[in-house]
This record gives sequence, C-alpha cells and structure tokens, in this order.
Amino acid sequence: MTQITKPSIPKGTRDFGPLEMARRNYIFDTIRDVFRLYGFQQIETPAIENLSTLMGKYGEEGDKLLFKILNSGDWRDAINQEQLESCSLGALTSRVSEKGLRYDLTVPFARFVTQYRNDIAFPFRRYQIQPVWRADRPQKGRYREFYQCDVDVVGTDSLVSEVELIRIVEEVYHRLGVRVCLKLNNRKILSGIAEVIGAPDKIVDITVAIDKLEKIGLDKVNAELRERGLSDESIAKLQPILAMSGSNKDKLATLREVLKESEAGQKGIEETTTIFELCETAGVGLTIELDLTLARGLNYYTGAIFEVKAQDVQMGSITGGGRYDNLTGIFGMPGVSGVGISFGADRIYDVLTELDLYPQKVLEQTQVLFASFGEAELRYSLRWANKLREAGIRTEIFPEAAKMKKQMSYADSNHIPFVAIVGSNEMAAGQVMLKDMLSGEQRLVSEEELINIFTTHQA
Amino acid sequence: MTQITKPSIPKGTRDFGPLEMARRNYIFDTIRDVFRLYGFQQIETPAIENLSTLMGKYGEEGDKLLFKILNSGDWRDAINQEQLESCSLGALTSRVSEKGLRYDLTVPFARFVTQYRNDIAFPFRRYQIQPVWRADRPQKGRYREFYQCDVDVVGTDSLVSEVELIRIVEEVYHRLGVRVCLKLNNRKILSGIAEVIGAPDKIVDITVAIDKLEKIGLDKVNAELRERGLSDESIAKLQPILAMSGSNKDKLATLREVLKESEAGQKGIEETTTIFELCETAGVGLTIELDLTLARGLNYYTGAIFEVKAQDVQMGSITGGGRYDNLTGIFGMPGVSGVGISFGADRIYDVLTELDLYPQKVLEQTQVLFASFGEAELRYSLRWANKLREAGIRTEIFPEAAKMKKQMSYADSNHIPFVAIVGSNEMAAGQVMLKDMLSGEQRLVSEEELINIFTTHQA
Repeated sequence: MTQITKPSIPKGTRDFGPLEMARRNYIFDTIRDVFRLYGFQQIETPAIENLSTLMGKYGEEGDKLLFKILNSGDWRDAINQEQLESCSLGALTSRVSEKGLRYDLTVPFARFVTQYRNDIAFPFRRYQIQPVWRADRPQKGRYREFYQCDVDVVGTDSLVSEVELIRIVEEVYHRLGVRVCLKLNNRKILSGIAEVIGAPDKIVDITVAIDKLEKIGLDKVNAELRERGLSDESIAKLQPILAMSGSNKDKLATLREVLKESEAGQKGIEETTTIFELCETAGVGLTIELDLTLARGLNYYTGAIFEVKAQDVQMGSITGGGRYDNLTGIFGMPGVSGVGISFGADRIYDVLTELDLYPQKVLEQTQVLFASFGEAELRYSLRWANKLREAGIRTEIFPEAAKMKKQMSYADSNHIPFVAIVGSNEMAAGQVMLKDMLSGEQRLVSEEELINIFTTHQA
Repeated sequence: MTQITKPSIPKGTRDFGPLEMARRNYIFDTIRDVFRLYGFQQIETPAIENLSTLMGKYGEEGDKLLFKILNSGDWRDAINQEQLESCSLGALTSRVSEKGLRYDLTVPFARFVTQYRNDIAFPFRRYQIQPVWRADRPQKGRYREFYQCDVDVVGTDSLVSEVELIRIVEEVYHRLGVRVCLKLNNRKILSGIAEVIGAPDKIVDITVAIDKLEKIGLDKVNAELRERGLSDESIAKLQPILAMSGSNKDKLATLREVLKESEAGQKGIEETTTIFELCETAGVGLTIELDLTLARGLNYYTGAIFEVKAQDVQMGSITGGGRYDNLTGIFGMPGVSGVGISFGADRIYDVLTELDLYPQKVLEQTQVLFASFGEAELRYSLRWANKLREAGIRTEIFPEAAKMKKQMSYADSNHIPFVAIVGSNEMAAGQVMLKDMLSGEQRLVSEEELINIFTTHQA
C-alpha cells in the first residue's frame, strides 16, 4: 500500500494563489517598469551558489542561517567515525555540503561583477528581482523564502546615482499610490561626530541615544550615554547635535560648525548638501529628512544611507540602501564602489493591502466566461471565444455543459465580471446573453457588440 | 588575511546577463500573455518542499536526483556511529535532511490542489512559471536549474480543454514566429493495440519499432519485434497498423477497424476524433499529426499525449504534455483528472537564437543616454531626463563628466540607439546634440523635438 502524505509546506514558506499572485505581479511589474524607465538592466543569478562564495560574507550568524545542500551521491564517504566525534559542526558540514541557497542578492551580484568584469561596461546599472532563502526562525512578516528587488549602480562615485535612486523611490511609490518619507543619513557624518567627541567606537550608541530624544528627553538621553561609556567631555561636545532642530538646511549648518575639525564629517556634509541640491535640480518632490539616527548597514555603507517609510501605516522600513566603497573586494577585485537600494516586496504587499490600494483591474483576470448547456452550445462558444481572444479580450470557456448554478458560482469565485450565456435561443439568433455579474443585468448581444463592450469601454 | 575566493558558480547552473534576460523575458512574457488571454491563473509554490512531499514521486532515480537540504542546527545529533555504519544511505539521509528543492511543477501543483481543495473553484485553470532543480549530470542543454512553464486544467474530463491547450500552443508559437508541428497520440489507442495483438506489456517496444519504420523498413522492424519477444501471431496482427498511411482521418479509419474488439482502443479513437473535430470548430490552423510513436509519460498519461517540434531547426520536443486521470491520488485525493502542457523555455530560447527571431526592440533597453562634460551639463541633463521619463522614454544619464570616447563606448556596449550630447553650446541654445548611434548622424534638437522623436516614430 502506498503511504499517503498529508500535504503541507515547510514552515516559513508560502504558496501564492491567483489573487496573491495578481497583487504581487502588480508590485513587481510596477517596480520593474520604473527600473527600466531609468535605464537599469536586469540580471539573474542561480539559486544555488558554491558555499565558498557565500560563507563568511554574512557574519557568524549568517553562516548558520544559510540553507546548505547535501552533496549528491554517497555523502557518507566524506565522513568517518573519528571525524563525526572530533570535527566541529562547521568542518563536518563542509565535508557533506558544497553548495547553499542564495541568502541575499548583494553577494551574488558582487560575484557576478567580479566574474564578468571584462565583459561589463561600467558604470554598471543592474536590477535583480529574485527570491532569497534564510533558515531564520519564522515569525509574523519574516519568511524563510522571500523576494528581494535590488537596484544598484556600481563603478562610479558620482552622487547623480544617489539622486537617480531617490527619483526611483519617488516614482515607484507614486505609481503605487503610497505616501512615503525618505530618511537620509551619511556614514561619514556619523564618523565625524564620533571623531570630534573623541569616541570613535561609539557610533551606534550615539545613534541609539539620539533616536530616543523625543521620547525620553535630553536628561535621560545624556544619562544613557554616560551608562554606555561616553565621557562627560564627549557628552558635552555632543550637546549642539542633540539640540539640533529645524530644516535639513539648518541641521547641515549646525553640523558644519560642530564638525569643522573632522575631515570625514566635512566630506559627509558636503555629499549630503550636494544630494539635496541635485534632488532640487532633478525635480524630486519626495519628502526627504536628514536623520542622524538612521544607522543601517554601518559595517558596509560608507556614504549616503537611505530608508523609506510609509506615512499612513505603522510598518518598518519598506525600502532601504546606501553607498558602499568596496563591493567586490571579498572576491579579489578592489576599488568598485557603488550605491544601491532594495525594495521589500512583502512589506509593500502588506502596506497596499492595509490601505486597500490595489486597482480593481489588477484583480480582474478573465474578462468574460462562456457558459453553455450542451455540446452544440459548447462548439458555438469555442468559435466566439476565438474572435474575442483575437481582439485581445481575456476569455474563458466553461468546458462542460454543467448546471447554470455551478457555472455562475465558478464565475463569482474567480472574480469574472461578465458571463456570456449560450442556449439554443441565443444560438438560433446568432447572439449570446451577456450577464453583468455585478449588477445582475443581462441582455442579448451580437458578436460585434460583445467585442465593442470590452474594447471601447475597457470593461 | 582574508582568503580570496575565485568566483564561480556550481556546474549546471547559469548566470543571465542583460541580453539573455531581455530574450528570456520576451519568451516568458509571450507565454504568460497567451495563458492569461485563455483565462489561466497564475500560482507559485515554494522552492523548498518537505521531502515527504517529493520522495517516491519520481521513481528511484528521481529520489536520487532531488537536491536535499541539510537540516538547520546540529544535524550530527541525528546520527551516531552505529547508524553511520549500519543504516542505508536513504535512511541516513532522511535523518539529516527533511526538505528538498522542487524537482518539477506537477507534484507541487498536486499538493497545492489537495491542500486547498476547499478553496478552489473547479475546473481549476492554473499556470505556473518557476525554476526547478535536478542533481542530474550537467551536459549540453541539460541544466541543474531550469525553468518550467506549465499550464493545466484540472477537475474536468471535457476534451474542450485539450483543444484550448492546442490553441495556446498555436498562439504562443505564432507570436514567437516559430513554425511548429504538433504530434498527437492517445494512451488508450496504444493500450488497444497492445491488447488486440495479445501483448499488453509491450506498448513501448511497439512504439519504438513503429518509429523505425521509415528508417529501416518493414522487414527489419518485424525482425526487431520478434527479438523484443512478440509472437508471430502478434506481429501478424500488427501489420495493418505498420502499413497505415495517409491523412489523420485515414489512419483513424484503419485503427477503428483494427481495434474494433478493444474497448479502450475505441475510446481512444473516439477521443482523438473529437479532438480533431473540435480543433476544426475552434479554427485551429496548426499542423497536427496523429503519431503512434509518441510515447511520452506512459506511466501517468491516460488519454491524449502531445508533443511539439519546431519545423525549421533540429531540436527535440519544445512543448509536451497530456491528459492524466489521477493527479492528486498520491496525496489522498482521488478522482481529479486533468490535462496539461509544459513549455520548455531553454529549448525555445535556443530555437529563437538559432533562427534569429528576437525582435530588435527586445534588445533595446535604454532608448537614450545623456552624455555630458561638466557639472553644469550634468544638472542640465538631469532636468531633461526628467521630462523624457515623464513621457515614458527609457532614459539614462552617464553619471560622470567622463571622456567622450568612454561615454560613446558605454552606449555601444549597452545597445543604446541614441546619445544626447550636452556641452556648453547646447546648454546656451537650450538644446542637445542628438547622435544616432547606428548611422552616426547628429543634429541639434529641442526638448520637444527630442520627445517627439521617441513618442511618434517609436524609435
């Protein structure tokens, strides 16, 4: 007897049905269209990479979260008793597994750039929309398989790239109808602050403290900074920055004064000022806020840091990125700098769902269903369906002469807005009875009329 | 010192650069558009499935070719010395691996249908375009990661579904510009032949022998059948079928006579006759050939069997499929019959490349590049690019004031047809110098003229 498996999928993975796919495609297509409009080119890399490419790139924790693939053939040959007892988990794993699943799109991109360096015309403007896999503990909004949508310009220091990415953010969310705010920071400003207050290793502590200012007040922030090991002198020097307020321009003016002794700081201010100026030139209408608490990716970002939040819904960052100095150094190709951002498709999906922002036409797949009640009627429908499809109308035929109720309920379940009913009277008249599933109205129409309904009114 | 990894990808996997992606997207988009036009709905399933879902579904060889994922955490805990010595490879593997990569789209689809049976409105018309993974020995045209494009109707016996799939084949290849021939067979006819000649277990031997008829002649085919264990009586009964010629109708007439004692055979002939009739009704213009040598998937197809070949290029089947009786029985849900076909994207890619059938516009990504030679010019370009993108023109800005030669060679490498050159004279005149990269011609144009060039002439 065959064993029957009760079907399920692994924790942290998802099936996407037709409705979810329609919504997801709407998001991916929107993002892709904007990337293309800005002249970015798509690449794809394999889901499976050599572990030598992936290991050591995401820290110790990341190494553990890589999905590793068991070697083909008899993997037992590679381990014996003694090794099973004496080798570390890592050493033993590397004996039975040579390949792993893509963990993000950045490392495969760095590998790609290094591998094809002689064929690529720089600056290389690439986008990549593919799933990644992480053996993370699954929880609400965190999956083991999820898509990333990355767009990067590598091989140039020009701040025009930052501005183009900001324009892309603006355009994507404009098209999706989501009001967003872009937070901007610069790694060099943070370094400058840590430098002038004499605490170069305290960047993160400083950003965390500033972040709490509004919530807990200046005194408590200063107390916390002391707890975190900052000297009284450092804290005193930090006060003008904590007291900073007003427009982005005002903040930059304060910083220019406070960081006048720091070369890195001045460079960061200059970069940020140029980005704001270029945004004005490029007609950016997006709300951009200089935010020193923004501290993502401090171990690889070297210039601008971005984060985007939706204004009308409580949700973490839905897009983020920054400039890096050394994308491909890990693969032996130094000096490739670039800037990139990543759109979080799953969170964008949640935002659009919560704000009910999907256009109705996204959900309408099939435009008209032919329902018929006999063999002759079915053949009649086949001929009509042909004509409709030639006119580009998405048309379905219910393939059996089932009961009216079953066919109508099928149309309902599949959000099909119109049903063309074919009985012997309709055939005799060379017409169909067209039923509007929303209003319930129905009327006899000719083939020409039917095609016109869809092509002229965009039903 | 950090160890430098020389970058490479696993054997049998591929990177796709911008040109390959443009071509692949053209194929996928064409297939997807046709699926949608016929009212099919997209689903996606996770790359990672439980091994309990996958094992035992593809035969013993298939079980070996599944990519298996090493369990997270300390997988050593699950095996001890004794097991390492005494357990079979399969038993030991199942202790350290619970999940595997999708091997095809059919088993995940069967799981999906079973799992969501209460939410699905049948007949369920789904398509699915996703990669699959097989630990096969890589060779020319055979990859370890490749895409499948499957389209199926399940939950109905109606032969209208077969005809709709044939129409889809016709439409996809019409749009791609590939002349194809569809070969049609029916499992029940093959069963009927084996039955009436008294050799029910020799279906494959019979199809293999018939296939050689043209090449080696009747005498040698009969000799081979004898070698393969068919009795003289069986071979004698097979002669009318070997002698069969003429149109599909003629062949069906012969079969009707020869198989008059076989219920299965008669049913197969009836199905095939109906499919031909319905194709005529539906206006199918595709060349369809009844071909008894077509013997794909004999262990699961129960009715019609399809295979599609390109006419102008030597290549195996580029699309294939058939009707099955019991999709979801393996998951405990009996009685779900359906019919499906699968488009082989990689082979279609090779056919289009060999016949040079990619439309030029597929390869043109960016329509115009702004090349400039100073900061002021770069800002001028930013403003213009904005306007062009608003008009839907795919526009790129070379982000640095690099040398003319570098910027032109960048445009060449990226197949960008027009370059808008911005120098101080152009700025003063409020124009750009537009260079046609193909002809080398250049002329001064205003913003309005530039937009018109792309929007009216579809350059």
